[in-house]
Amino acid sequence: MNNPTMHRIPPCSARAVELETGDELVIVDPEGQQVSDLVAFSRDDLAEYLSSGRSIDYAAKLWLSTGDLLYSNRSRPMFEIVDDTCGRHDFTLTPCSKDTFSIIYGETENRPGCEGNLVSALEPYGITTDRIPIAFNVFMHVAFDPDTGAVAVKPPLSKPGDRIRLRALMPLVAAMTACSAGQSNNFRYKPIDFAVERAG
Amino acid sequence: MNNPTMHRIPPCSARAVELETGDELVIVDPEGQQVSDLVAFSRDDLAEYLSSGRSIDYAAKLWLSTGDLLYSNRSRPMFEIVDDTCGRHDFTLTPCSKDTFSIIYGETENRPGCEGNLVSALEPYGITTDRIPIAFNVFMHVAFDPDTGAVAVKPPLSKPGDRIRLRALMPLVAAMTACSAGQSNNFRYKPIDFAVERAG
Repeated sequence: MNNPTMHRIPPCSARAVELETGDELVIVDPEGQQVSDLVAFSRDDLAEYLSSGRSIDYAAKLWLSTGDLLYSNRSRPMFEIVDDTCGRHDFTLTPCSKDTFSIIYGETENRPGCEGNLVSALEPYGITTDRIPIAFNVFMHVAFDPDTGAVAVKPPLSKPGDRIRLRALMPLVAAMTACSAGQSNNFRYKPIDFAVERAG
Repeated sequence: MNNPTMHRIPPCSARAVELETGDELVIVDPEGQQVSDLVAFSRDDLAEYLSSGRSIDYAAKLWLSTGDLLYSNRSRPMFEIVDDTCGRHDFTLTPCSKDTFSIIYGETENRPGCEGNLVSALEPYGITTDRIPIAFNVFMHVAFDPDTGAVAVKPPLSKPGDRIRLRALMPLVAAMTACSAGQSNNFRYKPIDFAVERAG
């Protein structure tokens, strides 16, 4: 592996990257308690996307970490998590959006949220809003009450410098955010850093 | 409401129905311990579909029941659950498929599963396999360990005659199955019954 450049995703925005098989995407929480919503699509056929439902079913657990595979809707492995210093991420909720802010927070500013920012980042690939699925919400801390099923969005467990490393298992276009939802990041809208370590 | 006809979905198959705003779809487990995977699309624009991530986020709970709304990916209410005699359904897992059977069960028969059966039922609407999302898995009993996130698929809590009643809040095409996955229905592949009570 070469020594990769670290890139910064400014608060409340998103970036897309192309990955080849074997490339490793490293997502870093530089200041702690920030979330990065990650989506991915197969570059061979953009109709194939990262699927929470398939990944949770095959892993038989809600919270995926080192050694786990992230599957596509076509049941093919897209990523392997090869390192994870945080250990807690969410894979059940859709990216925040202007409607999320309206319905949950009563906001009226029409901020694009992670959904709109992902669409902007993926615009060169023709990925429209309707095709943004449930994201792999890196560092997002969602707890469930086992008796009632109640969902609680808590401050992330990530500390400054915590990172997750994902190895691409097929040619992908991935996009990730510095999250715009106050509840997800303890109402401190911070940046996210990432690097791509090329396999070649 | 008129006195609706009850229709039977044979084991390991699916049916589609068109609903107008205000129509009520009643899904019945006639023998108990059977699951029905439900998906829905807006008839005004089939790119709008029933979204687990949106619904769980807005309800702030994993397990939806009487009084809860099921939202689309565009954050519009598609259904209201107006009655529910079972009270436990899943909204986290994708429909079983030939790949599910291969990966989880080691099966080699290439049975279509709920995914393939939903695609067959929705063929007149041009809904292809890639567009089958996480379903609202009626009567499916999925438990989560609050400490580890481990997922356990258990026999449904539904007893013979248990039913859920969903009111359509926009013109919809919905499709539902009699589930093909052994783990979901305690390895007894039973039928599902349904009726549509027209608002008019």
